[in-house]
Amino acid sequence: MPNIKDVANRAGVSVTTVSRIMNNRGYISESTRKKVYDAMEELNYHPNEMAKSLYTKKSNLIGLILPDVSIPFYAEEAKHIEEALYMNGYKLLLCNASNNCIREKEYIAMLQRNQVDGIIIGSHTLKLEEYTKLKLPIIALDRFLGKDIPVISADHTQGGSLAANEFIRLGCKNVIQFIGNTQVATPANEKNSTFSEIMKNNNINCVNIEFPVNFFSFENYLPFIKTALDANPNVDGIFAVDTIAFAVIKELSFRNLKVPSDVKIIGYDGIAIGSIIAPILTTIKQPIRDIANSAVSTLLYLINNDSTIVPSDIKLPVMLSQGQTT
Amino acid sequence: MPNIKDVANRAGVSVTTVSRIMNNRGYISESTRKKVYDAMEELNYHPNEMAKSLYTKKSNLIGLILPDVSIPFYAEEAKHIEEALYMNGYKLLLCNASNNCIREKEYIAMLQRNQVDGIIIGSHTLKLEEYTKLKLPIIALDRFLGKDIPVISADHTQGGSLAANEFIRLGCKNVIQFIGNTQVATPANEKNSTFSEIMKNNNINCVNIEFPVNFFSFENYLPFIKTALDANPNVDGIFAVDTIAFAVIKELSFRNLKVPSDVKIIGYDGIAIGSIIAPILTTIKQPIRDIANSAVSTLLYLINNDSTIVPSDIKLPVMLSQGQTT
Repeated sequence: MPNIKDVANRAGVSVTTVSRIMNNRGYISESTRKKVYDAMEELNYHPNEMAKSLYTKKSNLIGLILPDVSIPFYAEEAKHIEEALYMNGYKLLLCNASNNCIREKEYIAMLQRNQVDGIIIGSHTLKLEEYTKLKLPIIALDRFLGKDIPVISADHTQGGSLAANEFIRLGCKNVIQFIGNTQVATPANEKNSTFSEIMKNNNINCVNIEFPVNFFSFENYLPFIKTALDANPNVDGIFAVDTIAFAVIKELSFRNLKVPSDVKIIGYDGIAIGSIIAPILTTIKQPIRDIANSAVSTLLYLINNDSTIVPSDIKLPVMLSQGQTT
Repeated sequence: MPNIKDVANRAGVSVTTVSRIMNNRGYISESTRKKVYDAMEELNYHPNEMAKSLYTKKSNLIGLILPDVSIPFYAEEAKHIEEALYMNGYKLLLCNASNNCIREKEYIAMLQRNQVDGIIIGSHTLKLEEYTKLKLPIIALDRFLGKDIPVISADHTQGGSLAANEFIRLGCKNVIQFIGNTQVATPANEKNSTFSEIMKNNNINCVNIEFPVNFFSFENYLPFIKTALDANPNVDGIFAVDTIAFAVIKELSFRNLKVPSDVKIIGYDGIAIGSIIAPILTTIKQPIRDIANSAVSTLLYLINNDSTIVPSDIKLPVMLSQGQTT
């Protein structure tokens, strides 16, 4: 059976270079990479990573548990997380928890059996102690999962404040805020409380409408929004995540209400597909790529340092992106 | 160290039941599952799947290589594939090829080193012989990757025909068809050729506008569409994948052209987010979940049968979904 030296000889490079390419570390030119891959193929060389993992106790596998990867925000997070892991020589095991605590538990047990080096969790169906008792490096994506589990998120206080001040500037008097289910322990709740408080302090009527837990299926959006609009016919401003905002625009068009002259809309998230949808949504952009990169670098810090110091939570700045709906 | 018998005793069930839960096979009630997982936890029992894999030569890992998981169509495919694999006791390693052949090659080498049991490929940056020489069960998602690699796709001939006949019924005379890059060997090319042929046979002017290879970035859509519309001012019908169709609607609104009275639009794909975007797009729906399920079941057939019979390609029916853009 060929070994790494045979590959190096065949490619005319050093063993160190082959090793760096295999472990995806350090800069290697594309032409050198090609030479090494060609040599590996000609020799039919496939180092067995699983055998190596048993020896090194490292699998270079990272688990990512998301509620539903087909939701645009999560799809973008998954893309950027996979990209950041790839650049650091790690592979991604993707799990959709699908709002099911049995399934999330099975995934976590499965990830442990497969000896993943760490887990990034953006789901939240289990009790907090289920997460804290895991003996694995864990990062929480926009969730409070327990003491000692670092949380990476956007600065939602800033997000709520930016949106509230924009509605004040625009002169809105009756605002609806669609909010996630408050049973879910997420930093995003700060957006809602900040927004409500600023509205109250400025004597603006603000109705909070709360979604059921894990309200991800697009087909449920319109009936839910209809009910909210029926109950609040005087609304002149609406604050909601981008996908809900798109559905609100659709429902308002059925009612012959004009955006922004009758109702002003501010979204939240800044998902990429927004750039091709008319009208252009005014929205608070979360730095999705930066959140993914910070989650990966914090997780790799936990994996590579046997330290008892827990990295602090990270809050990344958001920004208001002006569109045609305000 | 606890073993599977200890878990079965603790949970008050048979070893077979524990084994079925661990391997995720057969129906087990949620209450039994919970008992078994509780027992595993109380005993801190984590069977090492990697050690087992070296022994059984099966990892229960499947690689999925997609161009970009943040594109809605691919995000939905990834979700349904992960779901189908989970139901069959397999785990998903997700790879974004990002239109880069070096990276796709590295992924395939990585998947082989990790002893995946099979690969589902929806990307296409390598030469065909790179795929056919792999000694692994492979399924191609909507791509021709080489002899003996089964292709799972929608029936694009039916899709092209449905759209063409709809434009004829509506009386369109100058149609633009946006098409993927024809260098990519995909069954979706049949949609374009069928559409063009029916247009020609009915004396309808049809301009094909071809995208660059791997044209995935939303921000590139509008400049590209502007050029196409400038060159074809008399257009009264446009056929394009859903995301391009959304961008077309946006560009037409800038030009004060009315949809559908001035220009009729038919999309292709039927992505879920379309249901919350106004106006409702008339579109040809691909059966995304059925495609995912067929890809997984065909791959599992290849993995579990040492047969030399290659399963046939599978073409799944599409349907026209009537919206407000025609």
